[in-house]
Amino acid sequence: MSDFRVERDTIGEIKVPADKYWGAQTQRSKQNFKIGTEKMPIEVIYAFAEVKKAAARVNAASGKLSETKAKAIEAACEEILAGQFDTHFPLVVWQTGSGTQSNMNVNEVVARRANELLADHAEEKVHANDDVNMSQSSNDTFPTAMHIAAVKKVTSEVLPALELLKETFRKKEQEFNEIIKIGRTHLQDATPLTLGQEISGWKAMLEKDKQMIEDGLKYARDLAIGGTAVGTGINAAKDFGEQVASQLSSQLGETFHSAPNKFQALTSHDEMVFLHGALKGLAADLMKIANDVRWLASGPRSGIGELSIPANEPGSSIMPGKVNPTQSEALTMVATQVFGNDATIGFAASQGNFELNVFKPVIIYNFLQSARLLADGMKSFNTNCAEGIEANLDVIAGHVDRSLMLVTSLNPHIGYEKAAEIAKLAFKENTTLKEAALKTGYITAEQYDEWVKPEKMI
Amino acid sequence: MSDFRVERDTIGEIKVPADKYWGAQTQRSKQNFKIGTEKMPIEVIYAFAEVKKAAARVNAASGKLSETKAKAIEAACEEILAGQFDTHFPLVVWQTGSGTQSNMNVNEVVARRANELLADHAEEKVHANDDVNMSQSSNDTFPTAMHIAAVKKVTSEVLPALELLKETFRKKEQEFNEIIKIGRTHLQDATPLTLGQEISGWKAMLEKDKQMIEDGLKYARDLAIGGTAVGTGINAAKDFGEQVASQLSSQLGETFHSAPNKFQALTSHDEMVFLHGALKGLAADLMKIANDVRWLASGPRSGIGELSIPANEPGSSIMPGKVNPTQSEALTMVATQVFGNDATIGFAASQGNFELNVFKPVIIYNFLQSARLLADGMKSFNTNCAEGIEANLDVIAGHVDRSLMLVTSLNPHIGYEKAAEIAKLAFKENTTLKEAALKTGYITAEQYDEWVKPEKMI
Amino acid sequence: MSDFRVERDTIGEIKVPADKYWGAQTQRSKQNFKIGTEKMPIEVIYAFAEVKKAAARVNAASGKLSETKAKAIEAACEEILAGQFDTHFPLVVWQTGSGTQSNMNVNEVVARRANELLADHAEEKVHANDDVNMSQSSNDTFPTAMHIAAVKKVTSEVLPALELLKETFRKKEQEFNEIIKIGRTHLQDATPLTLGQEISGWKAMLEKDKQMIEDGLKYARDLAIGGTAVGTGINAAKDFGEQVASQLSSQLGETFHSAPNKFQALTSHDEMVFLHGALKGLAADLMKIANDVRWLASGPRSGIGELSIPANEPGSSIMPGKVNPTQSEALTMVATQVFGNDATIGFAASQGNFELNVFKPVIIYNFLQSARLLADGMKSFNTNCAEGIEANLDVIAGHVDRSLMLVTSLNPHIGYEKAAEIAKLAFKENTTLKEAALKTGYITAEQYDEWVKPEKMI
Amino acid sequence: MSDFRVERDTIGEIKVPADKYWGAQTQRSKQNFKIGTEKMPIEVIYAFAEVKKAAARVNAASGKLSETKAKAIEAACEEILAGQFDTHFPLVVWQTGSGTQSNMNVNEVVARRANELLADHAEEKVHANDDVNMSQSSNDTFPTAMHIAAVKKVTSEVLPALELLKETFRKKEQEFNEIIKIGRTHLQDATPLTLGQEISGWKAMLEKDKQMIEDGLKYARDLAIGGTAVGTGINAAKDFGEQVASQLSSQLGETFHSAPNKFQALTSHDEMVFLHGALKGLAADLMKIANDVRWLASGPRSGIGELSIPANEPGSSIMPGKVNPTQSEALTMVATQVFGNDATIGFAASQGNFELNVFKPVIIYNFLQSARLLADGMKSFNTNCAEGIEANLDVIAGHVDRSLMLVTSLNPHIGYEKAAEIAKLAFKENTTLKEAALKTGYITAEQYDEWVKPEKMI
Repeated sequence: MSDFRVERDTIGEIKVPADKYWGAQTQRSKQNFKIGTEKMPIEVIYAFAEVKKAAARVNAASGKLSETKAKAIEAACEEILAGQFDTHFPLVVWQTGSGTQSNMNVNEVVARRANELLADHAEEKVHANDDVNMSQSSNDTFPTAMHIAAVKKVTSEVLPALELLKETFRKKEQEFNEIIKIGRTHLQDATPLTLGQEISGWKAMLEKDKQMIEDGLKYARDLAIGGTAVGTGINAAKDFGEQVASQLSSQLGETFHSAPNKFQALTSHDEMVFLHGALKGLAADLMKIANDVRWLASGPRSGIGELSIPANEPGSSIMPGKVNPTQSEALTMVATQVFGNDATIGFAASQGNFELNVFKPVIIYNFLQSARLLADGMKSFNTNCAEGIEANLDVIAGHVDRSLMLVTSLNPHIGYEKAAEIAKLAFKENTTLKEAALKTGYITAEQYDEWVKPEKMI
Repeated sequence: MSDFRVERDTIGEIKVPADKYWGAQTQRSKQNFKIGTEKMPIEVIYAFAEVKKAAARVNAASGKLSETKAKAIEAACEEILAGQFDTHFPLVVWQTGSGTQSNMNVNEVVARRANELLADHAEEKVHANDDVNMSQSSNDTFPTAMHIAAVKKVTSEVLPALELLKETFRKKEQEFNEIIKIGRTHLQDATPLTLGQEISGWKAMLEKDKQMIEDGLKYARDLAIGGTAVGTGINAAKDFGEQVASQLSSQLGETFHSAPNKFQALTSHDEMVFLHGALKGLAADLMKIANDVRWLASGPRSGIGELSIPANEPGSSIMPGKVNPTQSEALTMVATQVFGNDATIGFAASQGNFELNVFKPVIIYNFLQSARLLADGMKSFNTNCAEGIEANLDVIAGHVDRSLMLVTSLNPHIGYEKAAEIAKLAFKENTTLKEAALKTGYITAEQYDEWVKPEKMI
Repeated sequence: MSDFRVERDTIGEIKVPADKYWGAQTQRSKQNFKIGTEKMPIEVIYAFAEVKKAAARVNAASGKLSETKAKAIEAACEEILAGQFDTHFPLVVWQTGSGTQSNMNVNEVVARRANELLADHAEEKVHANDDVNMSQSSNDTFPTAMHIAAVKKVTSEVLPALELLKETFRKKEQEFNEIIKIGRTHLQDATPLTLGQEISGWKAMLEKDKQMIEDGLKYARDLAIGGTAVGTGINAAKDFGEQVASQLSSQLGETFHSAPNKFQALTSHDEMVFLHGALKGLAADLMKIANDVRWLASGPRSGIGELSIPANEPGSSIMPGKVNPTQSEALTMVATQVFGNDATIGFAASQGNFELNVFKPVIIYNFLQSARLLADGMKSFNTNCAEGIEANLDVIAGHVDRSLMLVTSLNPHIGYEKAAEIAKLAFKENTTLKEAALKTGYITAEQYDEWVKPEKMI
Repeated sequence: MSDFRVERDTIGEIKVPADKYWGAQTQRSKQNFKIGTEKMPIEVIYAFAEVKKAAARVNAASGKLSETKAKAIEAACEEILAGQFDTHFPLVVWQTGSGTQSNMNVNEVVARRANELLADHAEEKVHANDDVNMSQSSNDTFPTAMHIAAVKKVTSEVLPALELLKETFRKKEQEFNEIIKIGRTHLQDATPLTLGQEISGWKAMLEKDKQMIEDGLKYARDLAIGGTAVGTGINAAKDFGEQVASQLSSQLGETFHSAPNKFQALTSHDEMVFLHGALKGLAADLMKIANDVRWLASGPRSGIGELSIPANEPGSSIMPGKVNPTQSEALTMVATQVFGNDATIGFAASQGNFELNVFKPVIIYNFLQSARLLADGMKSFNTNCAEGIEANLDVIAGHVDRSLMLVTSLNPHIGYEKAAEIAKLAFKENTTLKEAALKTGYITAEQYDEWVKPEKMI
């Protein structure tokens, strides 16, 4: 990059690429934090743009900021939100723990672009700190942006994807409602249920996860904005937080509130811990569901084989004709990632000191990765696997026919101990349950046929 | 143990200590699982006793169980709940993953004790499986007992302890409401706030944690009972789950419901993951609070020293006169334990297969340990530390006086950059902020005195 | 407890139960830390007794401590090590983070008992701090005791149990060396191997884990002793650490060294993190092995069913005759516990400040729990499951016969793509592989028989 | 992308962008796994290129592959390694859990490029499966690539960065060797040490971490290659694994071996767990070090203030002149990430089934992220912070002068209890230690001056 301009901040002068809108502080961060490849998530940048836009509006309304400047700031923010400046936010996650440098990156880009838009108003010069950051601090805007980005991601991606998969399970539940199959507990044959019932359990998990996520979202709707540097709201008007929260609600079509206690809002991230805990609950359920699907589809000849799933790609580079449950594999890997992210988020959230927690970027980075992977993972699993699940009726029926656990329906008639004797005899002599039952003499053939009916056990 | 009796189950005969109420299956488990020292938590045993009692009542009401037997079972359960049989539940956590052996342990003890109580009714013999376990399976009673134990522990211990500590912070907030102190962000001096405000942040964290925990509790109030072996409710009446949940609600004075989908209830533990996620949020906040307390009380001569905490014990075996923040240390260790437990619970909850998750004992063991440690830890911290927190007014005032970050209040008057210049000059020349401000010539002494007032910055 | 005596420390007087050997500081801790039920592990107490004994010897040898006192201290320590004072160490894990209170507990009990033994030497009075703790601090003795306890636990329990299980697998490998079975990757049928080969993988995992654990042990053999309060070794002779380490080596029959840098030794617990990381590797492998065993034994009629495992107890309280893989369940629960403990240990180890890490008790508590559970879990699994594993030859042979993945052996002859075509045809038309191969015309029956030989694919 | 060509695999035809070298299976994966943004790390791709090159050489040497094809394959691999094809590996981490699709991506790109290079040899056509993947399977090449990538990353980035930081600490240790400062345990003033000694502890941690990492690396040098599909080595020559390992050693300048048991090598990832455990030990130490640095540099007026660290950027968007310990913040965030990654890796490693673990991509993704972040983080911290650490002599001396814990040096002279009395008196009356000592009458001024010498306490 031979072309550059000179920018300055309170530290001094620094060269910045001429074609970039960022300023001195962004450039300094770029040079001082050459760590990893993980950029500050664009969702955070966009959330910042929403905050800057809302703040400009509120500051203009209260007369602190000129209407001209406010409009320029708002216009610049909208361009950012339209994706026109994505390459002007080069900073990585591994920067200052308050996210100050990303806040300044946004302030700088907005200011520069606003000043371009103000070319005709030479007397009005938008300043990154004094105008774009007016009434704000990194310490309140960054957690505000975190909450906005988290809420948006969850409501616009995670929950819709969850709904999609839940709807597929709802349909499969109905489709398979009459298919009686063997139950399995401890991986051992158990009493029967219908395939529809089994799938209804998956659906119920997703329903419960959805409610939990929605409970978690409530807390993330409280915003730190208005607390400024340490929570006292220094340099901001008393009602600034509420005004901005209200403005953001209408900008974003999602309810947001000003957090009732700003000291908590800057230094605790219990909301992120709790909301991600709900995502972890979802991940645990998805792991279980994806495992069930691949086990039920295991085989084709030496596994359980009760379900068929779509063959989307060749399964093996060496074994021809192999078809693998790859969507389950991707989804379970996603689940393990979410579990690790949960550990990182909880750990980071516990490390606040005094008026500020300085692990904010790593928290939101992990949160958004979890949300994105869960959303994408559910969508992919739904489209490429769940929708194509089919029941192998022959295999399912064979398993029920051979099962010994139908004996459970004899408990109320002959008691647990005699029933156990029958099951053990059938297992030992490798006979059907009925043969064993008759051999013991505890019941007659008629009684067996009347009492042992899989269709009445479900 | 020379004295024993012979018991039998479907596997065969086995010797059981003559003075113990447990039976063959408990004895087998004792012998087959010599793993660790962690007993199945007594809270789970008591929850089981509640379930057995409620089930007997419901089974009697529906006519499936004789009133005589039901009464005997209820009486035996009440004796267990009175703590009279604590030594008769010897099994460890590391047993079968459905908790079947602890369910049978309860069934066996209840049956044996019930039969003792029925000595005069020789014709009525209570059977562990057929009567005590009537209409039930380990697969639905164990998760039911998990939820009961979890809800009780949290409502009767965690939340009251949380309230206690919150109340202390509320009082301290008021007591210290006028004490202006320096804020700290990034461990660096920042703009001031009152000590009351700082503590209000701690209080607000606990308030938020409480709400989150209550949200989490909602899901744990759904009970698996009625699902029996695989979720279909085989061998139980259709409304058995609802009847028992209602009975349990009145027995326990806590609201419980029959879970809407029993397949989910047996094989998913997302409720435990979510509720423990709320406990983790609390743990993260307690870690932060306990850390703040010990840092603010660090010293006595070479630390921050703004707070004094009680000296409860000699601090060092080698350094005489040393006083250490030991309550903070215990509480932060508790927090790290809760974080690890959270990892175990999430992992275990993800490992269900088909109709059953067989990691139930490890989940409830970790859950109850977290709840107990958090409750006890908050109580101990409250009594032995938080209530005795005192403010060191001299130290606090000295820090405010020397602070450079009061410069922030000049931003609206002279802009961020000139303000920064003043702060840097004061730091470089080791002078007061006012001296530096005047030296730059940007403002007058009168302006400084009017604009820089800590009491207006809070 | 109506009977008590009055003890005093630098804080003042306090009542202590008359029949207990502990003193004022122990009593204070008991009262100030009513948190949880987890006692300081007895292994730590015993390790402390070894340290006190070794220190007395070294202090006597250097003339700092009278021979009379030293002998009394040593005798008292030996009684502790013989288990005669187990009930005199009542403190919980959740105390001061340096373990000072447990160090003082040991100092107090040793001093009191030593003074009893010295009844005839009235002029010699053993003082808990000045004599028993001579040349020591909690800050160096506690981490020393941690390392001793960890090394002993691992070498005397974990590694022998691991060897036991490895030996069982070695025997099973040989026993099943000729049994050709279907391989499974992605839960889907793959090319064959022998059952002996499959089990050799389990054996190899344990071998590797053993080496890793031994590598991890090396670091735990470095002892902090000699560093005293902050690592400088104040109040201890220069070579005290080395002398004690050497004395401990001969007392314990295990090699120990004086840590080369005592500042690291007091404030970093990277050794515990690393060694527990090796235990986590073992836990991960045990989870995999235990899962394989239960899946291979799944059934009896509707699972994979290639192995039989012992039926140790009735499996279900409702389903008669059910036999479950309970040992696998216990072992996998142990694994999830070890994973959580690993999170706690790592977190706690990261939280040191300046000259001391004050999360020592929670680290060693979790470490010893992991070690104990792994050792017991492997022993239980070995005795009650692994040794009794049997191969179901019919099932295994049937799976090989029906397999489609034998097609892989055609790759070198007709290429991957034509081989895939054959496999897919057989799957689609539900025929044998040979029928499909001939139908495609790519090979003759003779070629098929020559090329497709499971026994040549292993 | 309007321009495409038609490719085919065993599933059928599919359109591929005309300018891309990948083939049908890569394209299928791209379409079927639209999950997240995390690409398969380029380090894995390069490791694969090394494997393909080495395999071609070995296959040619044994006569299985024509020399012409082998040379073309090798040339193509070298171009990949030169970075010329980076954009031709578009697949994400969240794909099939064996990494089959990335293996095929490499096979396809190598084959296509090799065929271009073979334009003059129309009769020789390199086939992705039959030639590039000859004697291999994804199941052995992917774990081989994992180990190569891990070893390279650690030896070429992590260890050099660690050395850099260790060397800085070594220099600082010497530079500050004479500066006596107060020690701190429990955040409370303790006995003195030199600043050089304190820093020597940091250096010793890094030394220990380095040894642990090297121990961990040993296991990662064992390669799965030669095991092919399930560990039996089907379709590969008996010594293929050893030949390739030897070839890779000379290609890479790092020692690699053929894993002694291939069944373990495909299905267990204990090596990754163990090696990452060593990285976690490093992360824990870095967290502690980075925390110490920022606490010691806290202030400037209301903190500990014993160290100065470089002011690299403006610290606050609202508080002018603020300088924050941002490098510590980035490094501690990195540490929390490594802790979460450790949880993911351990979890994923525990989930193998039968002959294969299908969580390979998520394991190596997390491993490489940890390694990259640790390496970059240490470098950044070293250059931008550690090298610029300076001692604030006045502050340090003031802390020592006022300290009460110098009293510890009186223990051997007057006993612990009298010493404690002196310290408490000084604290209570806010006097110097000497004043209090004389006031008690236990010692004379001469004795005090002789016995209490900070320079003799270190």
